[in-house]
Amino acid sequence: GAVEVSVRSPIACWFSAMLHCFGGSVLSSLMLAEPPVGFLAKGTNILLASSVWYFVFYCPQDLFCRCFAFLPLRLLIAGMKEVTRTWKITGGIAHADSHFKDAWLVMIAVGWARGAGGGLISNFEQLVRGVWKPETNELLKMSYPVKVTLIGAVLFTLQHSQYLPIARHNLMFLYTIFLVVSKVTMMLTRSAASPFAPLEAALGHMFFGLQKTPSKVKGEGAASSNGSSVCDQSSEQHHNGVKKRQAKKTE
Amino acid sequence: GAVEVSVRSPIACWFSAMLHCFGGSVLSSLMLAEPPVGFLAKGTNILLASSVWYFVFYCPQDLFCRCFAFLPLRLLIAGMKEVTRTWKITGGIAHADSHFKDAWLVMIAVGWARGAGGGLISNFEQLVRGVWKPETNELLKMSYPVKVTLIGAVLFTLQHSQYLPIARHNLMFLYTIFLVVSKVTMMLTRSAASPFAPLEAALGHMFFGLQKTPSKVKGEGAASSNGSSVCDQSSEQHHNGVKKRQAKKTE
Amino acid sequence: GAVEVSVRSPIACWFSAMLHCFGGSVLSSLMLAEPPVGFLAKGTNILLASSVWYFVFYCPQDLFCRCFAFLPLRLLIAGMKEVTRTWKITGGIAHADSHFKDAWLVMIAVGWARGAGGGLISNFEQLVRGVWKPETNELLKMSYPVKVTLIGAVLFTLQHSQYLPIARHNLMFLYTIFLVVSKVTMMLTRSAASPFAPLEAALGHMFFGLQKTPSKVKGEGAASSNGSSVCDQSSEQHHNGVKKRQAKKTE
Repeated sequence: GAVEVSVRSPIACWFSAMLHCFGGSVLSSLMLAEPPVGFLAKGTNILLASSVWYFVFYCPQDLFCRCFAFLPLRLLIAGMKEVTRTWKITGGIAHADSHFKDAWLVMIAVGWARGAGGGLISNFEQLVRGVWKPETNELLKMSYPVKVTLIGAVLFTLQHSQYLPIARHNLMFLYTIFLVVSKVTMMLTRSAASPFAPLEAALGHMFFGLQKTPSKVKGEGAASSNGSSVCDQSSEQHHNGVKKRQAKKTE
Repeated sequence: GAVEVSVRSPIACWFSAMLHCFGGSVLSSLMLAEPPVGFLAKGTNILLASSVWYFVFYCPQDLFCRCFAFLPLRLLIAGMKEVTRTWKITGGIAHADSHFKDAWLVMIAVGWARGAGGGLISNFEQLVRGVWKPETNELLKMSYPVKVTLIGAVLFTLQHSQYLPIARHNLMFLYTIFLVVSKVTMMLTRSAASPFAPLEAALGHMFFGLQKTPSKVKGEGAASSNGSSVCDQSSEQHHNGVKKRQAKKTE
Repeated sequence: GAVEVSVRSPIACWFSAMLHCFGGSVLSSLMLAEPPVGFLAKGTNILLASSVWYFVFYCPQDLFCRCFAFLPLRLLIAGMKEVTRTWKITGGIAHADSHFKDAWLVMIAVGWARGAGGGLISNFEQLVRGVWKPETNELLKMSYPVKVTLIGAVLFTLQHSQYLPIARHNLMFLYTIFLVVSKVTMMLTRSAASPFAPLEAALGHMFFGLQKTPSKVKGEGAASSNGSSVCDQSSEQHHNGVKKRQAKKTE
């Protein structure tokens, strides 16, 4: 339905895309009572994201989408997107730590929100587009990126609290490598099987007395989210790629 | 459905009316991370709005509504409401500027939210009344007041950033005149045709490659919102008129 | 549906339970533009609430629920829960007063939100569980606890503004006694008839010209909310009881 929305109301479409890209920033700002419009103040990021949005939706003959449907390019961009995810998580945790001293639950929550924000507020992002699916949210059926971000937030919080005997840059390196490898593997094999599925099933069985069925449900959820419109996904990936390049230049 | 709600639960009805009147203030507070209950601290405004709300919904034989259905009175109040809109927009922009220096997107967003807030949060205002229409929001089908407020926010932001070579009071005067004239014309001719329709169609065609159809869709949206319950609208207008008179007295 | 959710997604279930327990804290933080994640920083409270949540939902053979279905224990916990309600209301009012001087509407709103927050944000708490019932919210059909909290917030605000010639601890004592007695009576007689029903009907008739029917509608709303899953309710009650004991120990 994204294409229909883009034709009917470019403003709603643009706002929805911005919410998708900067959702983590908006959500973590709300959680820490900071102005959620702060992301609009970063002019260059907005400009980059907007131009990618414009080219994706309004480029004649879908040239832009076709261009990014080329597999190696998609792999490259997906990889770069995962790299930024690590930075977002650690940034969120450091930010939360500056507000609440040693509140590890707050650190996990803000790190998670920053890293996976677009997914967590998907209900409200859909509302902007006039879609409302209360029965699906990322908490009920966590997709793989949201799940792996949660694990990352827990790991980095443990490291920050000195419970994990590993240097921070080592953990960042290992976590990023894991993210990129698993993402690329999932894209190449087109499988939606989460690498955590067996672990989850075991944990669920141990702590919550769950049967083996729930893991299947989760697998389906991840599959459906993976099988969504390729073009939309690539736009997001490209956007993040562009942003990362920009960030590299400025540093 | 407003009458039914007023019978079933006066509190929900009152809260919904307050959200409609002070929506801009609530929304812009949320965007700048200020207490959204701030509007409750302005005792006189609340009292005025509440008394209007009370008379509109609970006056015997609908005397109040009939009184304000008288056309010249409605025109007067609608005109005064449009005057306050200009003040709200410039107030929002000045407020945003004091938080974020030279962030013109933030200024546009906050000015727009302050001026057209009631419309932008209409989904949540409906939720208070137990109505939920996800397929209609003001971003998808912008009504004329929301649209003209957005244009005003852009103009005043440009003026604030010195990009528009015109003095501020001149721009305010011209914009207010335009608002009042277009509103009165629309009320007198009972037409919902936005004066921007041809411009929009041209812009949409140029930038987004849209066909001529979307402008029709938008026209319908404006028509339906204009054709809503007259009494409710007049109450809002009267409220704003009263508030304006009050503001004049205090200054 | 809570049991099904707990099987499908423990995280959504936990988040929903936390929102139910700490909803008042989250809502009043949002209203005063403070970090809504603040409640996560109180480690012991979260730990207690989480352990109760865990035992309620995942205890083998529902031992925990059966244990708390024992009537005298339920009465004890319900009583303690009502005691904490008084503290929450006065805490909220004092907090609001420190932000806005002499804004009595803000004080009522924040006191009410703190005391009855879980009920007021029930729509969003349901959304986490994938349920969305826009036609039912606590403003439209106020349940008895929400109603009595509103009255308490008004009373304590009046007392705070020196309009009520009664010492604060006396008012707290009387209000708590009233809360506990009415709650225990309602639990013992299993009646949902609000003690305010005649008063409400009289006020509604006087101010809003309502017929006698609305009071019946409200009575039904209270009945249905009272007849909800006993186990869930007892968990919440127990949680609050545990928290109170903890608070007593620390002081």
